[in-house]
Amino acid sequence: MSDPRLTELARLLPGLKLSTDPGDLEHHGRDWTRRWTPAPIAIAYPADTTEVQGIVRWANDHHVAIVPSGGRTGLSGGAVAAAGELVVSLDRMNKVLDFNAVDRTLTVQPGIALEAVHNAAREHGLIYPVDFAARGSCQIGGNIATNAGGIRVIRYGNTRQWIAGLKVVTGSGELLDLNKGLVKNASGYDLRHLMIGSEGTLGIVVEATLALTSPPPASQVMLLAVPAMDALMKVFAEAQHRLRLEAFEFFTDRALEHVTAHGAQAPFAEAYPFYVVAEFDAADEKAEAAALAFFEQCMEEGWVVDGVISSSDAQAAALWRLREGITESLAAYKPYKNDISVRISRVPAFMAEMQALLAEGYPDFDVVWFGHIGDGNLHINVLKPEGLDYPAFVAQCEQVTALLVDTLARHEGSISAEHGIGLVKKPWLSSVRSPAEIALMAGIKKVLDPNGILNPGKLL
Amino acid sequence: MSDPRLTELARLLPGLKLSTDPGDLEHHGRDWTRRWTPAPIAIAYPADTTEVQGIVRWANDHHVAIVPSGGRTGLSGGAVAAAGELVVSLDRMNKVLDFNAVDRTLTVQPGIALEAVHNAAREHGLIYPVDFAARGSCQIGGNIATNAGGIRVIRYGNTRQWIAGLKVVTGSGELLDLNKGLVKNASGYDLRHLMIGSEGTLGIVVEATLALTSPPPASQVMLLAVPAMDALMKVFAEAQHRLRLEAFEFFTDRALEHVTAHGAQAPFAEAYPFYVVAEFDAADEKAEAAALAFFEQCMEEGWVVDGVISSSDAQAAALWRLREGITESLAAYKPYKNDISVRISRVPAFMAEMQALLAEGYPDFDVVWFGHIGDGNLHINVLKPEGLDYPAFVAQCEQVTALLVDTLARHEGSISAEHGIGLVKKPWLSSVRSPAEIALMAGIKKVLDPNGILNPGKLL
Repeated sequence: MSDPRLTELARLLPGLKLSTDPGDLEHHGRDWTRRWTPAPIAIAYPADTTEVQGIVRWANDHHVAIVPSGGRTGLSGGAVAAAGELVVSLDRMNKVLDFNAVDRTLTVQPGIALEAVHNAAREHGLIYPVDFAARGSCQIGGNIATNAGGIRVIRYGNTRQWIAGLKVVTGSGELLDLNKGLVKNASGYDLRHLMIGSEGTLGIVVEATLALTSPPPASQVMLLAVPAMDALMKVFAEAQHRLRLEAFEFFTDRALEHVTAHGAQAPFAEAYPFYVVAEFDAADEKAEAAALAFFEQCMEEGWVVDGVISSSDAQAAALWRLREGITESLAAYKPYKNDISVRISRVPAFMAEMQALLAEGYPDFDVVWFGHIGDGNLHINVLKPEGLDYPAFVAQCEQVTALLVDTLARHEGSISAEHGIGLVKKPWLSSVRSPAEIALMAGIKKVLDPNGILNPGKLL
Repeated sequence: MSDPRLTELARLLPGLKLSTDPGDLEHHGRDWTRRWTPAPIAIAYPADTTEVQGIVRWANDHHVAIVPSGGRTGLSGGAVAAAGELVVSLDRMNKVLDFNAVDRTLTVQPGIALEAVHNAAREHGLIYPVDFAARGSCQIGGNIATNAGGIRVIRYGNTRQWIAGLKVVTGSGELLDLNKGLVKNASGYDLRHLMIGSEGTLGIVVEATLALTSPPPASQVMLLAVPAMDALMKVFAEAQHRLRLEAFEFFTDRALEHVTAHGAQAPFAEAYPFYVVAEFDAADEKAEAAALAFFEQCMEEGWVVDGVISSSDAQAAALWRLREGITESLAAYKPYKNDISVRISRVPAFMAEMQALLAEGYPDFDVVWFGHIGDGNLHINVLKPEGLDYPAFVAQCEQVTALLVDTLARHEGSISAEHGIGLVKKPWLSSVRSPAEIALMAGIKKVLDPNGILNPGKLL
């Protein structure tokens, strides 16, 4: 604590847990991107809202930048602290504060893991339906800061839809109690929705009231082998029409190769260009019969060439592993990740154009596609070829991204579907938001964080 | 057009339809509130976005206030022009621009009536699920400006949830193309959500891309007679648990008296304190059996003392008329309307306190309660006693509102659930939003409308 600013912080908030331990600085200074060298001045672990407010006021007085920090499972560098910031870790504010059976709400602190939220909801016979692979590590505050999406968006929407109330500390240290858990509240600008997805640049979430819902009926999982992209879109349209979908995910043969090489069991004897994992309601014989009829029609039409339907929870989990294991199976290759979205109807044309561009310009790159067809959200992972050093690889990938941005612009898509802009996509923000929009965002940032202490350099 | 500012507007936009006809000024200068004397300088009827932008630029140059104007079915004075404003009527921008079957979206101009949106969706086998009694007159632009709720919120949420894209002209005349119909788009502050519910004070909606969904299964409607408020809450909890609800509405005996006096058929021989209209999925015998079992349980427990289940669409419509006809049946009494919300769990305590206060302080007032229990949204209509003149009546009602505001504050509710703040609730904005929030709203307004030309005096 040789930094006099930290000494002052410790004096102002004597109970505040602070660390300058090099291990802590490294651990809390980075997210899953691993592209920046962590260099925060310290890590603060506030225990309550008052400490968060005290930190923010101190930061204003001493012109110290703050990085609000959750589970740091982000992939856009939004929680990186590489420039002498104070990391405000919400790890200690991780409790369930209240459950209300009539309102069907769960009030939690921001540092609670998504999986702990799932468990708390389930204890009361309800669900919090936002879900994705990082559930064990990511925190709800971070989910809110990025409006996290995931694998059930097609049924339940993004995080935004499940936030009934939000307590936030602004860049001036003021505590806002937004919406207070109301279902209907037409009383002016909904600052709650402004906060959701603002990547820690407008406020620090200190409490959230989450809406819960009834569990869906029993479901089944289907794995389908699909010969071509246009067939895949037909399968999707038919599934949307005939089944009540919980999820509709796709991945390519390259993705399957990686995930089976990483230990998952190959589902079919042969390889196919595309695979779909679909989960759908199958509460009774009628619903199961509808699923079978859907599958048979897809086979007859030639849209699907092979398939499996789960007959047990274990089999359903094994099929899901093929999709959910992809990210982990690629991690060793330090992939360059793009997380884009287009309108669903644009997916086939966009994908065909991008695949042609990539094959022509970067024939040596192993490009793995997977994602959420039902949301128009595609993850494009470029793997580092052996022998190419990492900085050169990233430089080449940025050229790929430039191509991607051009193609996206023509298809009116977004350079970030669910990962956020952070540091990684900041150079391309202007491809998705107009100069007028970016100027308005900067103006709004100034209103909520006049001294620019909240996560500066991220997003804007 | 003797006003030189209007002459200049006509010169700048020679194709723009403008009217200073006294009938038009009166018609377009007021909404359903009837508390203010219309006094706009003129009505402009732009035919396209370019004309809207031209009007806004002219308004900035000449310091003329603008009132964006839809169907003017609002109940908060949000679309009133009583101070020499230019009314910008979106009546001529009322077309369906596009339907996309894969994306399940309908792109429309702002002046289209909600009912026309319903019809356009249904033509394609889909639904736009936001619905309320003013559907024939209200316009989608106004729905967006107030984040309209209505009778299906319990199942489908408010308007906010169905807006996939929004084109908006800001107070500086800039055209923003927000979110472009994407399902997932994590690229900074979601200005779309800031616009929704901003009551025409931040921008003028010139185009909206609406998300559609599959029609629900066949449904039934149930009318229940309920002896007490705590029983009503038990009926709601049980219905939520056992049925898949489309709507769960309540009204009091006073409401039923008015609606039957106004021509609706009385459902029961006797009168009861509370009534519920519930609509729920009844696609097959299993669902119908569940509804019957629910009803029988409610009768056995004594929560319900009489009831009817619809056995035809005509009967369902007749039951709905009892609820939807209330507003019209009260109109002749020039009721003073309060549209409040509390968390669902707070409804019984809030209602008991309010009813006691009203009975004690205003024993002569006929107070009619109805609303959306499943959203915590209660409509409290105070009817003018004969012999009391209107200004004196309003003055007394404002005293009632002061009591209401006190009680709401203790229950953490909102003075406006779905009508908006406008002019009517502006004196009480500070009861639901903190000084910090109001200051932030004013700051944000300044960013989007620097010269304060958009609907000044409303909301803030």
